[in-house]
Amino acid sequence: MSDEAAQREADEAFMRQALALADEAAALGEVPVGAVAVRDGQVVGRGYNRREIDRDPFSHAELLAMREAAKAVGAWRLSGVTVYVTLEPCAMCAGALVQSRLSRLVFGAVDPKAGAVGSLYDLATDPRHNHRVEVTGGVLAEASRERLKAFFQGLRARK
Amino acid sequence: MSDEAAQREADEAFMRQALALADEAAALGEVPVGAVAVRDGQVVGRGYNRREIDRDPFSHAELLAMREAAKAVGAWRLSGVTVYVTLEPCAMCAGALVQSRLSRLVFGAVDPKAGAVGSLYDLATDPRHNHRVEVTGGVLAEASRERLKAFFQGLRARK
Repeated sequence: MSDEAAQREADEAFMRQALALADEAAALGEVPVGAVAVRDGQVVGRGYNRREIDRDPFSHAELLAMREAAKAVGAWRLSGVTVYVTLEPCAMCAGALVQSRLSRLVFGAVDPKAGAVGSLYDLATDPRHNHRVEVTGGVLAEASRERLKAFFQGLRARK
Repeated sequence: MSDEAAQREADEAFMRQALALADEAAALGEVPVGAVAVRDGQVVGRGYNRREIDRDPFSHAELLAMREAAKAVGAWRLSGVTVYVTLEPCAMCAGALVQSRLSRLVFGAVDPKAGAVGSLYDLATDPRHNHRVEVTGGVLAEASRERLKAFFQGLRARK
């Protein structure tokens, strides 16, 4: 297997863990977004969107995963850490990737309305910032989109 | 006194509280940035930068003040809340203002290197987002700049 194929296989395996966390969010009535933070092939942080339950506007999946990773690493710098998240991060979360000096971001579906890693902005790769994040988008994007679609269809059906 | 003058006076009074919190950060060896969140003329959240102490990349002054405000308000939506912060917010924090549906932001000094409310970006007022924040910049800016300057001069002197 080529290095590239091995990387893709590893990315998909971690993204499946993020998708499973998105399902946990959906089960709680939250918009289904999940994330894992990985260092040296080990998961060091997990999170899923829990904004309503926590009553906290910052309880986005990738922020929670990064905060848990920072605790595991024992520092606020997340050098060497990759975050896998099922949806393109918003401006807050993309800014947080830069703040935490994250090495790499892998995301699933794009978010044309609020995404800040290619859609509305390119915050993670802006050369004016003091840190840039390596980005891979579109990993298991369809699986992420399906979950979001099912969630919002369910919301409309209940109204 | 005109409405405008009364508003300016109130803004400066709350900014002085934010500056006092910046001094607490400096006393702990943190970059001196402070913030208060205000609703109906009452302070409902306070924060100062404590990134190093907390080992948390998200422990920026205004995020901590907003989180405390969300707890006080009992909801993640910070409608009717004004945040006063001594330094122009970074992309993460500016995105967080939008995420939390904050009504108004008042900041002190501009941050030409990382500011996202006028300097590098205009995240708080982007018409493509589902929420826009009213922004007033430059309130007691000199007092904020002096604190930052003294802090970084002190750092260099210790090296």
